[in-house]
Order: sequence, then C-alpha cells, then structure tokens
Amino acid sequence: MSRSAAAQPPLWMTAAKLPLRWTRAVACATALLYASTAFAQTNADRIIDHELAHSRAYETLSYLTDNIGPRLSGSKGADLAVKWTTKTLREWGFDVRNESVMVPHWVRGAERARLVSHNDQKIVLTALGGSVATPADGITAEVIEVASYDELAQLGRAKIAGKIVFYNKAMNMALVESGHAFDAYGDAVVFRGTGASRAAEYGAAAAVVRSVATASLRTPHTGAMRYDEKQPKIPAAAMTTEDADLVHRLLAKGERVRMHLVLTPRTLPDVESANVIAEIRGSERPEEVVLIGGHLDSWDLGTGAIDDGSGVAMVMESLRVLKELGIRPKRTIRGVLFMNEENGLRGGHKYFENAAKREEVQKHVAAIETDAGAAPPTGFITTLEGAALERIQSHARALNRIAPIKFTSSKHTGADTSPLTDAGVPGFGLVPDPRHYFDFHHTPADTLDKVDPKALAQNTAALAALAYILAEEGL
Amino acid sequence: MSRSAAAQPPLWMTAAKLPLRWTRAVACATALLYASTAFAQTNADRIIDHELAHSRAYETLSYLTDNIGPRLSGSKGADLAVKWTTKTLREWGFDVRNESVMVPHWVRGAERARLVSHNDQKIVLTALGGSVATPADGITAEVIEVASYDELAQLGRAKIAGKIVFYNKAMNMALVESGHAFDAYGDAVVFRGTGASRAAEYGAAAAVVRSVATASLRTPHTGAMRYDEKQPKIPAAAMTTEDADLVHRLLAKGERVRMHLVLTPRTLPDVESANVIAEIRGSERPEEVVLIGGHLDSWDLGTGAIDDGSGVAMVMESLRVLKELGIRPKRTIRGVLFMNEENGLRGGHKYFENAAKREEVQKHVAAIETDAGAAPPTGFITTLEGAALERIQSHARALNRIAPIKFTSSKHTGADTSPLTDAGVPGFGLVPDPRHYFDFHHTPADTLDKVDPKALAQNTAALAALAYILAEEGL
Repeated sequence: MSRSAAAQPPLWMTAAKLPLRWTRAVACATALLYASTAFAQTNADRIIDHELAHSRAYETLSYLTDNIGPRLSGSKGADLAVKWTTKTLREWGFDVRNESVMVPHWVRGAERARLVSHNDQKIVLTALGGSVATPADGITAEVIEVASYDELAQLGRAKIAGKIVFYNKAMNMALVESGHAFDAYGDAVVFRGTGASRAAEYGAAAAVVRSVATASLRTPHTGAMRYDEKQPKIPAAAMTTEDADLVHRLLAKGERVRMHLVLTPRTLPDVESANVIAEIRGSERPEEVVLIGGHLDSWDLGTGAIDDGSGVAMVMESLRVLKELGIRPKRTIRGVLFMNEENGLRGGHKYFENAAKREEVQKHVAAIETDAGAAPPTGFITTLEGAALERIQSHARALNRIAPIKFTSSKHTGADTSPLTDAGVPGFGLVPDPRHYFDFHHTPADTLDKVDPKALAQNTAALAALAYILAEEGL
Repeated sequence: MSRSAAAQPPLWMTAAKLPLRWTRAVACATALLYASTAFAQTNADRIIDHELAHSRAYETLSYLTDNIGPRLSGSKGADLAVKWTTKTLREWGFDVRNESVMVPHWVRGAERARLVSHNDQKIVLTALGGSVATPADGITAEVIEVASYDELAQLGRAKIAGKIVFYNKAMNMALVESGHAFDAYGDAVVFRGTGASRAAEYGAAAAVVRSVATASLRTPHTGAMRYDEKQPKIPAAAMTTEDADLVHRLLAKGERVRMHLVLTPRTLPDVESANVIAEIRGSERPEEVVLIGGHLDSWDLGTGAIDDGSGVAMVMESLRVLKELGIRPKRTIRGVLFMNEENGLRGGHKYFENAAKREEVQKHVAAIETDAGAAPPTGFITTLEGAALERIQSHARALNRIAPIKFTSSKHTGADTSPLTDAGVPGFGLVPDPRHYFDFHHTPADTLDKVDPKALAQNTAALAALAYILAEEGL
C-alpha cells in the first residue's frame, strides 16, 4: 500500500461502529500491514477523525474560562488553573509534573480618565500590564499626539515635558485583511511595549496608546509594557480606538486637550506558580521530545478563551486523544501548559533553564506552540526553511483532511518556546485564521462565545496529528 | 415639460460650476417655466444635489458629539446642547424658540457585579435608566433565568422571592438580517422596559436583562425602564450578551449561580430644559406645518452620535440648506429638537400639549421624525396607507436620486411625534439601513466614528426634500 493511500479512508474506519476494543484491534491488525511512514499517516488520520468526531476540547476550555475565568499571573484564577489542569490530566491517566516558577503579581486598580477641556467627557481606557500608578487622585495634563518615535524626538523635551503623550498608531487593516494580522500587530504594538519609557525620556507625565485592535465597541485592549530602567517610570494605558479618534479629531481642530487620568495598579511581591507538564512517553526514543505548548495565564479583562485557553485546551486534548486511541509514537510528546506568557514569560524561561540543566534542550525534536486563537486552522509557521520546509509539508499531508494546511517559514513561532527555538530547536506555531484575532485579543471580550467548537476541534486535530507525525517520524 | 422630466438632470444643474448667485439665477429662471408640482420636484432636486455636494451635517454632528459629548436629560451636556443648537441656528439666521420642559434627572452611579459562586468573576453590566439603587455595599442573591413572563409566572413567588431574575431573551438575528431589526428589538426589549416590576411582583430582589444587542464586545446596552407603581421598586441592569451567555451556560450545567450586585444610581429633582424650535415660514399657508424632528438628549454611556445626534444634525442641516438655497415652500417647515426622548418623552408631550393649547395640532400636515441612526437611507415608514401611500411614493420620487427610497406603512413612526400621530397627524419616520443600528444603540460605542459623512448627507437630503415636497404640495 502506497503512502498516497492515506488520502482514502483507511480500513479501520469501517469498524467505527464496533466497540472501542474491536476498533483498536482492527486498527492494530491493519496497521501491521503498513510500512512505518504509512503507519504514521494512518495513525494521523485516526487522530484527526477521532478528534473531529469526539472532541472534548470545548468542554475543557469551557471549564477553564467559565468556571475559573481570568487567569492573570499571581491571581487566584491562575492558581486554580494550575490545580484544575493538573487534576484533570491526572484523572485522564497522566503523570503530571508542576514545574515551579516565580511569577510577577500585578493587580489592576482604578482606571478612569476624562477630558477636562471638553465637558469632562469620559475616556475609556485600561492600564497596560506592569504600569505604575498615578497618584490616587490622578494627574491632569495636556495631551500631545504622535504617531512615531521620530515625531516624539522632533517635539523634544520642550514640547513633551509634563504632558501626556498619546501614541496614535492604528493597525494596518489592509495587512490584516490579506491575512497578515500578526505583522500589522507587530508594527502597531511597539508603542504599547516601549512607549512609556520613550516618552519619559523627554519628561512626559504619562503615556496613552491607541488600543492595538482590529475592531472596537469602545473596547480597550491591554497588554504588557516594559520600562527602561534608565528612565523614570510613568503610568501607561491604552485608550479605545473610539477615544483615540476623538482626541485626534479634537487636536486636529486645533483645540487644546487636557486629560485627567487615574490609574492605581499595584505590583505585589512575586508569587510561586507553575508550568503544568504531562507526556505520552515515546516507545523507542523516549528521551527525544516533541513539545506542544500553550499558556495557562491570561489577561485579567476577559476570560482568556482565545488567549490562550483554547491553546491549553488543544494541548490537553491532544494528549487525551492520543491516550484514548492508545497511540504511542517512537518519541515522547510532551504537553506544556506555560505560566506567565503575558507579562513576563517566566514559565517559558524556566522550562528552558531546567531543560538546559538536564542537557535536554537539544533532545527537543520540535517545539509546537499554539497561542493564536481558535479560528479555523490555516496552517503552521515554522523555523524550517527550504528542503526541510518542503519535507514537512509533504510529511504532514494527512493534516489536509482537516482543511488545507500550509507550512510557512517564520523566524518566530511562539513566545513560550522562543528560548528553545533561539537555541536551535525547530519551532512550529499553529495558525488559525488570524483575521479576527485582534478583535478580541487582550480585551474583556475574549470570552468562550468567541470560540467555535468545530474550529477548536479542527485546530486540536492539526496539533495532535503534527505532534504525532514528528514524534513518530522525526524531522 | 412633464413631471417625468424630474428624473433627468434639470437645466440649472448645467450651471453647477458658475458662481452661486448665477446658479440661483439660472435655477430660478428655469423654475419659472415649470408648473407647480414640477417646480416642487425641481426644488427637491436642488435640495438633494446641494446637500450631497455641500453638506455641513457632519460638522454639526461632530460638535454635538465630540465637543459636547453625552447629553442625558438633566445633565450639563444636555444643557450645553440646548444652548449650542440655539446659538448655532441663530447664527444661521433663524428665529429660535426654546420651549421649556421639566425633565427627569437620573444620574448613573457605581455599577458592578461578580459571581460569588464562580471565583468572583466580574460581570459586565450597566444600570437601566430610571433604576433605583441597591444598598451601597450591594446585594448578593441567587440568579434565576427566564426567557418569558410565562416562565416567570410558572416559577412563582416560591422560586423567585429574594432572587435576581435574569431575563435572557436574545434578539432574533434572522429578523435583523432580513431588514426587520426594529421588530426584533421590539420583541426583546419588553423585559428591559417592564421586567423589574414583573419580577418584583413575585418578590425578586433585582432584575438583570440580557442586553438588547446585535453585536457585542462585552458591550452593555442601557435603556429606559418603567416601574409599575403597584409593585416594590427593585434595581435593574443589563448584562452584556457575553455575560448573559456565561450565566446561562453555568445554569445549564446545573450549577447554582450567585451574584453580588452593586448599582448606585440616583434620581434627582426634575430640571428645567427645552425643546429647540426653528422654522422656515410658509409663503402661502404659514399656519400649516410640516414638522421635522430628532432628539437632543442621548444616553450617558456614549456620545449619542447615532441616537440621536445624527437626527439633530439632519434637522438642523435641512433648515440650513433650505435657507441657503432661498427655498421657501407654501407651508411652514418646523424643525424641532426634542428633549428627553430617551427617558421620559417629556419634550414630545410638551410640544403636543402646547400645540393643542394653540389649537395647532390639526394644522400639522405631517410629522417627520429621524431617530434611527445614519446608515445609508432606505426609505420612510409612514402612517399613510393605500392610495395615500401610493401617492406619497409618487410625489416623493425625486428622492430616488439619492438612493431607492421606499415608503412603507407603519402604525408607529417615531416616539417624540407619537402624541401628534396618535391625534391623527400623518407620520413619517426616516429609515436608514437598520441592520447595524443595534450594534451601537444605547452603548458606550455610540460615537461619531460610527457615522459615515456621505450617508449622513444622503439621509439629510431625503429628510429635507421630503419636508419640502410635503410643505409645497401638501398631502
């Protein structure tokens, strides 16, 4: 039987209505007829078909988002998420390891603003993660708009000192609509990350950025920011696109805009938390690892359904479905639920640090990350290039029974796995359709209703099948 | 020249590039050749073409929403809106009358909720307009879900007493998508209006409704509610659709859901405010009136761009464009900017009361209301039926140069003008495309960016031209 037969329903599928042990027996007997790679393709088909028909990923995601809710690092929700995923994976029969990691504990406080120059109109905004606070009764200052660091530098200290710097850089919607939402995000998010310190360099009193968003119903988008230790720390927030447009229009009319801004977040002492790790141990080369990972923590505004509850559910479900089907590839498939991707990446770094101590980094055959939502799958980005890229596209052709799955080269395939890929481990990142991801990302609207159970199962099938193929066949 | 010639560009249009005084001269000379109705059609064309080319409606709307902002009855914003529209119409050369009216003064307070049964998850909600407060430290009670008053009655006092009643009735999206958004709204909004008192009848502690919405990014939709004086007054709020779905899913799992709810709105003493009235006095029958009206007040969450800043801008701009073109029809066109449509309709009633005192009601030839946003125009609803409906469709055919404009019979053509139409005055209501109106209606997202200047001008052209035709030709 040639490998191309994989595109046909395999024999064992005709046994689908038999009791599970019979199905397995038929599948097993059939499988023995196959050569190794054909066998891998067939098992990939089994994984995919089983997941599409019997997925429990949505049930997992539902508990994580509806019963636990937001899971910002250091919060009670994050703690419950570690405990519940550990308990659940154990109930599913896995040996589960909690990899201890100290994480930041930033707590959102009051956040409000109004335009004292314009009838005290309310400005809807949210503190950026990691921001320092204003005084409890706020600050009042003139707002100066820029769209680039060049503009900021041109204005200089004379114009900036004591002001609230407003970074008004919209996402490029043409890029988003052509499928390059993450590029558009990358271009616009710069000011969220480093805008406060850049403005502080010229004496600014605070920084507000336009929410990095592809949709808004007066919806603020939070996200991490980083202070440059050489500059004074000033408070930082994101306005909704509507409020950004309002301030822009008023300034464009030549009016002076003054804002009263109150932000009272607190940074508390670090908290002990954990990455949650479980695996399907390899049958022939258990020391070689295919990692599949998502992150347990979420921002505090929503319930982190697409960022990254769906990734957690996919990783857990991938392990569960492999176990349920009794499929054990040659190499180990390790599921890692990382802690603190959003505001520190401490979990990703801790995993790498421990892997390095155990001299295990180079034994990672691949690291597959899923942290881009759960819209219908379109493919994977991968650090592979050239012939290796072509090879994986061919080896993973079984995935096309889910949807057309395209592998595309990229230097960055995921944040939590970046220490591994920086060290040379081949990286993969699942790419669900990205066009609406930034409608919800980091907002109060990142909730379960944004996830379609069918698309979640399709993504899980793609993740589990790719992990299986890499673990069975290597790269 | 026959009336059908109106479908062709009239002669004066060929003078479009001449200075304005020449254009007017050519138009005037040309018009003299026409019979009266053809003349009316030609002036309608002039109004439409001038408005589409030189609209200032967006500029007016921009000041109202960006510089003044929210305009809830009794607020500083509402007061500024009365003053600014009065001043602006005077600057445009109109005699402006402020018709005094006492309005309610309800002020939103704190509003927050969390699920104490589920990890203290935040519930995003907003108080309904007119709601009483909870105690300052809130109430905590079990949540009971119903989708109808029948269900509520079946549960009865034994199950309802002391609980928070959750009305979970979604808008019918099939109706919305087929163009009947206002019918879908009417079906779902019942519980917002009367749900609190109906629940109070069975001893409920509070009522929360699912936001009446066609879109949500965790977006609460407020709106008016009315207490039945025979029942105890209990607090009432609207949850976002996401929060409604969350509570529904938890209850559907069989879990007990307990909510902590804090609402601290206050009802202050009534405040004196005003309808703002200006007119183009009729040349032959000035005592006969075609009324065009929108409402100055808005909800407090957004800046009331589509509800109903756009209506205000259309009414003001209709008057301005008629004056600028020097067009004075036989009958009077009266622009009325009503106060307090949202939570009392005091302005609409006061206008009627004063008109009745002056025995002026029956002298209203028609009342045209614009309070349905500013998406591209599709037509008008009207209380006219049968032959009269056919006649207006024909008389107003000039409007088709804007877009296909359809007249459709309806018993209700507007809230502010309902006292007039209830007394037999023929009513008209402008119908912009309604499919996305309830995405923004009564939310923080009702802001200027939701209005397309071109569509606003098209709506204004339709309003002004219809008013002119009715004032020139009668009904």
